[in-house]
Amino acid sequence: MILIADSGSSTTEWRLLDGESISQYQCIGLNPYIVDEHIIRDTLSQLDIPFDKITELHFYGAGCGSYEKSDIMQTVLQSVFSCADVMVYSDLLAAARSLLQKNEGVIGILGTGSNVAKYKGDTVVPFSTSMGYILGDEGSGNALGKRLLKAYLGDKLDKDLILKIGLDKATILNELYSHSFPNRYLASFAKLMFRNRTHPQVAQLIKQSFDEWVEVCLLPHNITSLSLCGSIAFYFNAEVKRSCEHYNILVTYILEKPIAALALFHKAYQ
Amino acid sequence: MILIADSGSSTTEWRLLDGESISQYQCIGLNPYIVDEHIIRDTLSQLDIPFDKITELHFYGAGCGSYEKSDIMQTVLQSVFSCADVMVYSDLLAAARSLLQKNEGVIGILGTGSNVAKYKGDTVVPFSTSMGYILGDEGSGNALGKRLLKAYLGDKLDKDLILKIGLDKATILNELYSHSFPNRYLASFAKLMFRNRTHPQVAQLIKQSFDEWVEVCLLPHNITSLSLCGSIAFYFNAEVKRSCEHYNILVTYILEKPIAALALFHKAYQ
Repeated sequence: MILIADSGSSTTEWRLLDGESISQYQCIGLNPYIVDEHIIRDTLSQLDIPFDKITELHFYGAGCGSYEKSDIMQTVLQSVFSCADVMVYSDLLAAARSLLQKNEGVIGILGTGSNVAKYKGDTVVPFSTSMGYILGDEGSGNALGKRLLKAYLGDKLDKDLILKIGLDKATILNELYSHSFPNRYLASFAKLMFRNRTHPQVAQLIKQSFDEWVEVCLLPHNITSLSLCGSIAFYFNAEVKRSCEHYNILVTYILEKPIAALALFHKAYQ
Repeated sequence: MILIADSGSSTTEWRLLDGESISQYQCIGLNPYIVDEHIIRDTLSQLDIPFDKITELHFYGAGCGSYEKSDIMQTVLQSVFSCADVMVYSDLLAAARSLLQKNEGVIGILGTGSNVAKYKGDTVVPFSTSMGYILGDEGSGNALGKRLLKAYLGDKLDKDLILKIGLDKATILNELYSHSFPNRYLASFAKLMFRNRTHPQVAQLIKQSFDEWVEVCLLPHNITSLSLCGSIAFYFNAEVKRSCEHYNILVTYILEKPIAALALFHKAYQ
């Protein structure tokens, strides 16, 4: 049996290929920068997967782009899936294989975090170091959440919108700075922004966020077309395309989650 | 005996007034947004203070500006200093009393974090909600550190400067996202920037950081003069004054630490 995982900062999607049948599982995101080995083991133990029957594990993960972190992940996964060939790849390769299979191109992720890379049909090379939610993640759910909270805490939002946020300032600051996963907390506000995306102030914050993403992450690398995956790219596809078009950048495909296309990729090329 | 504490995000300074004698103590910053009750108790227990002889405790703390957090701090401190009248104030009041005693004016803190407030000679009112290191803290040690790390991770620094940083990218990202106190980790780079402040790239990053502080925190509130305390204001006083002068804002006084002047304030007005 072949097991495939795609782990973002918020969620990990699993697909189990057993001949023609495909089973699905889901758990929290297993980003090694954010969750430790103990949490990874604990989370895996709660999955109803036939661990000893897995012969191949293809694990694609956010935070697995560096050798150090992918080594840690490899060791943890190998100890749990002791009978399997374990392969750990970056989440960027998941995006590339799901969007382009074996064709060359530029791909990006806009989810809880963000990233952009060049895909050569087999390997994927990020244009720059992924800086995470404190320093980077332009255009991501984190970045959208940051903009909304800054506007709210800075008294720049209309009363009707504040009522919809339904939180007070002390609660937000407390949650943000005591939350185990501040990146997920920030990104949770992207849903609220999606529901209120026609409100002029929210529309403006969304536009600023994607414009910043284009200016910081695409223009300096002379990117003229790309394909995207991730929940933010998918749900805000109209706004993402609008920001890209404004700078003459073509968005070719947008996929919400790579996992289905990834499962097909491994079925086709196993 | 009267005990006075000024707690920033990195350090807490203590002064014990016993008649004419003044004793000093120091411990980690006790910001209730960042350290929990357990750490606060543990840290206090390691201080060689005659707890049962304290009759008054004046505790000034970063993160103690909200009712909720100052209540938590009040309860913890009261249980440790059971014989004392315990009073908890914001770190902004420490800045105001140390800089202006009972005179009116605008005061600011530029340390690990940042804040600006109006002082009416007795009470202090922040111009806006302090947003902390993820969303705000413009002009602070955090903000300086963020700029340096973004420039480094984005391959924008000269080789000689990279050698001086003496860290690699993986280590920085790992430290930043697994560190218990990312704000202190970010601010630790301000020292390196101070030592290299004549390097053109560092000088530019410092200028951008203080210009942003003026634009985001001072200009919208029509501030034309202010007094400052905090290590960043003190060590980078020339750069801070230059940014302020550029926007016709007068910096009247700069103090590194409020504690000495605070002790005198309580001696004079007890």
